[in-house]
Amino acid sequence: MPKQRVQSERGEERFKAIGPAEFFFRNIELTGFDNYTRAIFQTVKEMLDNSLDATETHGILPRITIVIERLNEAKASKEEEEKKEIKGSKDGIYRITVDDNGIGVPQDKIPYAFGRMLYSSKYVERQTRGTYGLGVKAAVLYAQKTTGEPATVISSPIKDKMTYRFKVSTNISTNEPDVKERGSWTKSGDWHGTRVSVIIEGNWRRARSKVVEYVRRTAIVAPYADITLITPDGTLIRYPRRTKEMPKPPKEVKPHPLGIDIETMKRIAQLTTAKTLLQMLTTEFQAVGAKTAKAILSMAGLEPDLEPKKLTEEQIKALVNAMKEYGTTKRYKAPSKEALSPIGEKLIKIGLKSMLNPEFVTAVSRRPSSYSGHPFVVEVGIAYGGEIPPSDAPVLLRYANKTPLLYNERNDVSWKVVSELNWKNYEVSFPAPLVVLVHVASTKVPFKDVSKDTIADVPEIEAEIRLALQEAARRLKRFIIKKRKEEELAEKVITFLKYVPEIA
Amino acid sequence: MPKQRVQSERGEERFKAIGPAEFFFRNIELTGFDNYTRAIFQTVKEMLDNSLDATETHGILPRITIVIERLNEAKASKEEEEKKEIKGSKDGIYRITVDDNGIGVPQDKIPYAFGRMLYSSKYVERQTRGTYGLGVKAAVLYAQKTTGEPATVISSPIKDKMTYRFKVSTNISTNEPDVKERGSWTKSGDWHGTRVSVIIEGNWRRARSKVVEYVRRTAIVAPYADITLITPDGTLIRYPRRTKEMPKPPKEVKPHPLGIDIETMKRIAQLTTAKTLLQMLTTEFQAVGAKTAKAILSMAGLEPDLEPKKLTEEQIKALVNAMKEYGTTKRYKAPSKEALSPIGEKLIKIGLKSMLNPEFVTAVSRRPSSYSGHPFVVEVGIAYGGEIPPSDAPVLLRYANKTPLLYNERNDVSWKVVSELNWKNYEVSFPAPLVVLVHVASTKVPFKDVSKDTIADVPEIEAEIRLALQEAARRLKRFIIKKRKEEELAEKVITFLKYVPEIA
Ligand SMILES: Nc1ncnc2c1ncn2[C@@H]1O[C@H](COP(=O)(O)OP(=O)(O)O)[C@@H](O)[C@H]1O
Ligand SMILES: Nc1ncnc2c1ncn2[C@@H]1O[C@H](COP(=O)(O)OP(=O)(O)O)[C@@H](O)[C@H]1O
Ligand SMILES: [Mg+2]
Ligand SMILES: [Mg+2]
Ligand SMILES: [Mg+2]
Repeated sequence: MPKQRVQSERGEERFKAIGPAEFFFRNIELTGFDNYTRAIFQTVKEMLDNSLDATETHGILPRITIVIERLNEAKASKEEEEKKEIKGSKDGIYRITVDDNGIGVPQDKIPYAFGRMLYSSKYVERQTRGTYGLGVKAAVLYAQKTTGEPATVISSPIKDKMTYRFKVSTNISTNEPDVKERGSWTKSGDWHGTRVSVIIEGNWRRARSKVVEYVRRTAIVAPYADITLITPDGTLIRYPRRTKEMPKPPKEVKPHPLGIDIETMKRIAQLTTAKTLLQMLTTEFQAVGAKTAKAILSMAGLEPDLEPKKLTEEQIKALVNAMKEYGTTKRYKAPSKEALSPIGEKLIKIGLKSMLNPEFVTAVSRRPSSYSGHPFVVEVGIAYGGEIPPSDAPVLLRYANKTPLLYNERNDVSWKVVSELNWKNYEVSFPAPLVVLVHVASTKVPFKDVSKDTIADVPEIEAEIRLALQEAARRLKRFIIKKRKEEELAEKVITFLKYVPEIA
Repeated sequence: MPKQRVQSERGEERFKAIGPAEFFFRNIELTGFDNYTRAIFQTVKEMLDNSLDATETHGILPRITIVIERLNEAKASKEEEEKKEIKGSKDGIYRITVDDNGIGVPQDKIPYAFGRMLYSSKYVERQTRGTYGLGVKAAVLYAQKTTGEPATVISSPIKDKMTYRFKVSTNISTNEPDVKERGSWTKSGDWHGTRVSVIIEGNWRRARSKVVEYVRRTAIVAPYADITLITPDGTLIRYPRRTKEMPKPPKEVKPHPLGIDIETMKRIAQLTTAKTLLQMLTTEFQAVGAKTAKAILSMAGLEPDLEPKKLTEEQIKALVNAMKEYGTTKRYKAPSKEALSPIGEKLIKIGLKSMLNPEFVTAVSRRPSSYSGHPFVVEVGIAYGGEIPPSDAPVLLRYANKTPLLYNERNDVSWKVVSELNWKNYEVSFPAPLVVLVHVASTKVPFKDVSKDTIADVPEIEAEIRLALQEAARRLKRFIIKKRKEEELAEKVITFLKYVPEIA
């Protein structure tokens, strides 16, 4: 029977190439925009993350306002209406605007930064919240998909005398920005920063709690930021600045030999200004001095004075292999931590204390470590008691490069470590009023998904989380034991006082 | 203090655009290649999936051989070695080869199909295992990243007299294929098909169980396929064909009005050969006849004889809105199921029976349904008792377009439904010997990740899974009750027989 059909179908394949804009437009759910609820959440997240990068990373105390407005009610299709159990069909069209006091975007870069997939200022060895060059553009695509409205960007770059305004969307076929309107005017005050708006279909009713939680968790680890959220319900939520101290901004660094692959090496060999191989090794990499460089070259069987641009494919391969080989016999200096910007124990404690009002708080910021040549640092905070309500398991606050992770918790390496810890050993028995914060900062956080929901369980990272958590939990244990002793003592005193008359 | 640093850092951003090859090369973990273990698994998966598409989708009974060879032991770096607890560092370099009897790849398409991201023959409205145009290319990128070796492709297209051989990798900067070698010869027999090899670093020791399980689960739902796996340990695992019956191949269909967005409409208006808007609506869409088309056009306030290519942006928007609007008042015919190719109840039962040897087996194949204009169908199978070992929860076999899903189970919509079901109501109390198979087939499976691990909980899909599962569970319940009665009866008979002498 199948034989019949075969003849007409066989070998009649039509091949097609698509570009990145079309890929992400077709598969927008990969970027986190997988339903009307998540769409509002993801838009706020991507825009807020960008605003924090544009301020904090440049030493500016962030002042950010998020406004979500409902433009009109959306109608459900008959198909949607009939399925009454459908949670999260759209309940309106929303304009989402985020306004910051950041460094701004240069005029000529604005169309690309917001209208071209895979365009970014963050493709460098340095810790930032964005690493894909996709975040806000996914929101722009989603707007195109649902309402067809372009994004509006107003930006006043910090070193510029003008303010610029663009309406921009993306040409899906070519991945070129499609500028619908542009204008500019001379700055009046000394405002610098960026305001971005997109108009999308969404479901605010269901998104509300997630959005509020995202902003709150952001504020916990950024007590130096002033963040305001105005919702379509007309409520205003404000997290005022609680300290002027900020983490040290990250610096761009050179690649580490253990993070190098053949493709990267090819690129470096093409772009370097070094005239010899030896010079290239010592100037283009961290952790490689003249001695190390010579050892690597001799392992690779390459002359030190070869010209980098003339290396053959085989020579490049030999060089990369020797670099790795060297790592199996000697030890490189660990990847530089200059590129990292952890939150720090002090700020974690300020954040947890001011937001949760616990009885006890502690924070552990580990020393930088690395995986596959990428530096990373793990930080853990614990808050306990006070106004924290008891729960059956620790409440976990996950962060990657200072951004909260709210979705798909059970698939995250932090969840694994926190749920595997034997809390009894630390005198915690559930239900307990326990909040655990885990922060992983890296120049390359190994996310499992484009939507940046979960961190992969890279063994090195897992081990660091465990060590930090154990240390913080030991401190909690000491607190609990001390407190219990005090309570026992107090009880004894009371008992004693009760019996005093009898004794007397 | 921060003020100081500010001046040197502010506003000095370097912007950069990258292409899709560089994006996925940098972030290869997004495609599933996130560690040495998963890399072997993912390579086998992508190549096996392609081979099944190239056979079954075209009515050819699949005969596929997978060979995994260890080429040499890999050395761990000092850094890696020191961390003894590191699970899954590499244990070798592997050549993975998959050989099929499919339709082959046309000569001029081979370099692109294997060396260019986002190039595919599956970007059409039709159920296939590949939909991203990324699968085998991710393996090629991973090979470039870890061993620098190009892929080897030998293909003999079904309608061609020649066989072709290419060695190809990807130019990371340009996303153009980089052909290292090419050759061709006249076919001797009538072989048609494709053989693909890549050479990657991996960890076979840890990957083994996942690879074996993937092939086994593939064989469960493809009893018409003959699959052989040869491992580096020298073992040969063969799943011989158990039936010649195959599911009906899917057909390409036109888009449904509820699946249309502004960008797609723009494209259709540009590419259509229709001379008028009315003609365009009736010829380019499914479920739109002349009457419906006229109603839509009048809602949009557009003349039926407008020329499609001359539509303005505003007119396109009005048209798309009217199409959706029409869906809120009238009902479109449901999306065509021609594009789907479910497994079918019979094959699911054959598969479960032959692989698990259960005492009871049932399968429910629901009627096609749709979400956002995409048709889908849900199938559920249950196997119970017999050689199935008891476990504390149902063992879940998840499938999307006939491919097994093995990772991140708890994040999947099927897990949600299966774990929420009150099994007590169906006379199942755990531990129980229960296996549940859930298959979601669609022209557009809403995966949550590029690595295709989990299906998003789209409400329409969730509801269908629940209905199918309940039906299958009811059948199981009847079986269990009947069996219990028989056992009780048997016991009574035994008891009776025991007492016979006394009565007598
Ligand atoms: N609020 C902002 N202030 C300054 N620059 C911004 C802002 N939003 C976006 N950008 C610029 O646009 C680029 C692209 O943003 P995005 O698409 O979110 O990708 P990513 O953040 O991963 O780089 C950023 O790298 C940044 O340079
Ligand atoms: N074994 C094969 N037989 C025939 N065609 C193949 C085979 N492997 C790959 N192809 C072709 O190469 C294309 C790209 O494959 P891939 O990168 O896995 O993306 P996708 O499967 O998503 O299309 C496929 O669409 C198919 O046309
Ligand atoms: Mg961003
Ligand atoms: Mg995921
Ligand atoms: Mg594929």
